[in-house]
Amino acid sequence: MSSQFSAPHPGPTEACERLWRNARLATLNPDLPGLGLVEAGAIAVAGGRILYAGPEAALPPAYRAADAVIDCGNRWITPGLIDCHTHLVHAGNRAHEFELRLNGASYEEIARAGGGIVSSVSAFRAASEDQLTAESLPRLDALMAEGVTTIEIKSGYGLDRENEGKALRVARRLGRERDISVRTTFLGAHALPPEFKNNQTGYLDRVIADMLPALAADGLVDAVDGFCENVAFSPAEMRRVFEAAKALGLPVKLHADQLSNLNGAALAAEFGALSADHLEFTDEAGVVAMKQAGTVAVILPGAFYFIRETQKPPLDLFRKHGVPMALATDNNPGTAPLTSLLLTLNMAATLFRMTVDECLAGVTREAARALGLQAEVGTLEAGKWADFALWNIERPAELVYRMGFNPLHARVWRGQ
Amino acid sequence: MSSQFSAPHPGPTEACERLWRNARLATLNPDLPGLGLVEAGAIAVAGGRILYAGPEAALPPAYRAADAVIDCGNRWITPGLIDCHTHLVHAGNRAHEFELRLNGASYEEIARAGGGIVSSVSAFRAASEDQLTAESLPRLDALMAEGVTTIEIKSGYGLDRENEGKALRVARRLGRERDISVRTTFLGAHALPPEFKNNQTGYLDRVIADMLPALAADGLVDAVDGFCENVAFSPAEMRRVFEAAKALGLPVKLHADQLSNLNGAALAAEFGALSADHLEFTDEAGVVAMKQAGTVAVILPGAFYFIRETQKPPLDLFRKHGVPMALATDNNPGTAPLTSLLLTLNMAATLFRMTVDECLAGVTREAARALGLQAEVGTLEAGKWADFALWNIERPAELVYRMGFNPLHARVWRGQ
Ligand SMILES: [Zn+2]
Ligand SMILES: [Zn+2]
Repeated sequence: MSSQFSAPHPGPTEACERLWRNARLATLNPDLPGLGLVEAGAIAVAGGRILYAGPEAALPPAYRAADAVIDCGNRWITPGLIDCHTHLVHAGNRAHEFELRLNGASYEEIARAGGGIVSSVSAFRAASEDQLTAESLPRLDALMAEGVTTIEIKSGYGLDRENEGKALRVARRLGRERDISVRTTFLGAHALPPEFKNNQTGYLDRVIADMLPALAADGLVDAVDGFCENVAFSPAEMRRVFEAAKALGLPVKLHADQLSNLNGAALAAEFGALSADHLEFTDEAGVVAMKQAGTVAVILPGAFYFIRETQKPPLDLFRKHGVPMALATDNNPGTAPLTSLLLTLNMAATLFRMTVDECLAGVTREAARALGLQAEVGTLEAGKWADFALWNIERPAELVYRMGFNPLHARVWRGQ
Repeated sequence: MSSQFSAPHPGPTEACERLWRNARLATLNPDLPGLGLVEAGAIAVAGGRILYAGPEAALPPAYRAADAVIDCGNRWITPGLIDCHTHLVHAGNRAHEFELRLNGASYEEIARAGGGIVSSVSAFRAASEDQLTAESLPRLDALMAEGVTTIEIKSGYGLDRENEGKALRVARRLGRERDISVRTTFLGAHALPPEFKNNQTGYLDRVIADMLPALAADGLVDAVDGFCENVAFSPAEMRRVFEAAKALGLPVKLHADQLSNLNGAALAAEFGALSADHLEFTDEAGVVAMKQAGTVAVILPGAFYFIRETQKPPLDLFRKHGVPMALATDNNPGTAPLTSLLLTLNMAATLFRMTVDECLAGVTREAARALGLQAEVGTLEAGKWADFALWNIERPAELVYRMGFNPLHARVWRGQ
């Protein structure tokens, strides 16, 4: 596995390399209430990991003599933001389709004009890895400019071994070209490629017997996902994909219950999925199953907004049963051309009435859990990677309240 | 009047100073269909004004020998964007109130915690001009980073002569500190200040007899606005303000029919208003009156979204009667903490189904008209100020389709 998450933790006696002091911390430490706020806080770092995050008054004396000391001027520090659900590596955009629809075009007219996911697949297959990297970097840079330090990127526009591999290789490459952690997700079960028209089983056989094992063997797959919907793959089909993932020891995720209730959340839970995502139509049985399995609910308000959905995900049920909620952009060309995680926070609050604490936990601690990285990132705690963001704000609620404003002061990834 | 709009037009024989060539133009020329598109276009500029904007093949030979020639690499150029309705000069923010409301606080609890417009007024009065300038510049910079070259800024948080003057002086100062054209609007009739509690007539007398004439005499007022609503000022009260404005020769605008139908649009039209703004509850009679008066409909989707309004402005009636529609951020701390005009475009399309052409005309040509500046800015036409934006996009629809992404390549204000 070529994951970026395999470096050793620093030992307890390690010297402090860098110290951020005179800061207000939203640690997201789960042992503290709310956002885990610490006034007059400090963060000590060595080897890219946090040695200490807490009140400056309680900083171990050995850490005061850091090689570099940064006075934060009483600024707020949060964990680096995590975008745990994106299709960021794609080719072209669907602005023309968007325009046609506003002008009243029917779905048939749009299909005739070359729109829909088919257009994203053709554009993707035609693009080289260099082209895909060049197209994707501005989107990644937009997210990083808002303090994102970890991102998940799915395949799913290639839909054959070579092109799905291309997607995942580009995703890994983005993690080398920028100071950000990238998690890859294989989404071969996203749509039916044109060459398998009327042969969905034949395509799934290919996904399971050929694409997934080959790409996993190449170390390109951190998790396996699928689109479980009447217009995509059935629960029985997704079950086959999940069994194949399980046989390879890979964790799973699912696009579940976005447009109708196919009991996708319960299916995901049955396989101990890291997350079930979208969930607008999930019922209480699905929520209970997620709770029992420890599956995170990934809420995607940008897609809800963009496709003008009216059915909201069952937040009260997630709260009632204690299912952790994460938030992500869902960045994709068809239903969420969204490259702002801060705007995603505002949408979650405005459209779904998620609280400020829920929103901020959703792009830090709970987003880490949705990627299986809760031991590595997502909170300001000793032992985790030193990924964090410094903000020009007076209170954390400003990150949720504003629309189209970026108050980032500085971004730190792995202590740099 | 210290307006920035009083420089002379260049003569027809003037030499070209700067030439932008190899560009695709969305001229918004009203004599052309749609966005007034020109492929293989060029813009010749002298003295900060456009000498020529059109096909490069038809560029007058005298203009080919410019002092500076910029190859645009076939990029798109639009007129500089115009944000024609903002309350950008304000102090503090209302993020805490936003957070309390998400946590279920009632309006009384928020009022007790110091929320509501009263909190914006106290914060404003306590702030110095330097502080207000420092607080407002990051918001202005966010808008300018998206290609905004003209902005309207209202007073309305001072609510006495000194503090309303402070607002308008800061607005003028922003226009000196940045390369942007600023239009000021006196909004004394925004809310009742605490010292006039239970004496709305007394406050209006002060607005009309004292504040407005004094501030107009100081050259601080380009237009006069009011908030006509059950919770603010009645049509009869606004009529008094408009009569005072008319006596001073000042154009008027109105926050009309946002929360209920008080026939504000018709009142604005009766006074030949430049614009009526919000208009969610305007009826057909109001729309017809606006058409007859040449009053622009300023649509504010950010406020609609943020306060979770469900009544949409009557776009089909504006279309039916040919009322021009502009779009603006409404940037303000209470109902639209929004500093992205591009996001405003997406909201207008997604929430109201405005077309791409309507959206882009709404922040250029029609926004200029809403400020009475249609002879000066808003289109790429000879004689107008050379305010424009170059974009890294493949088609204009991308400016509307994306969310939270800024594809600006370069911004030109007055030819620089
Ligand atoms: Zn997705
Ligand atoms: Zn307003």
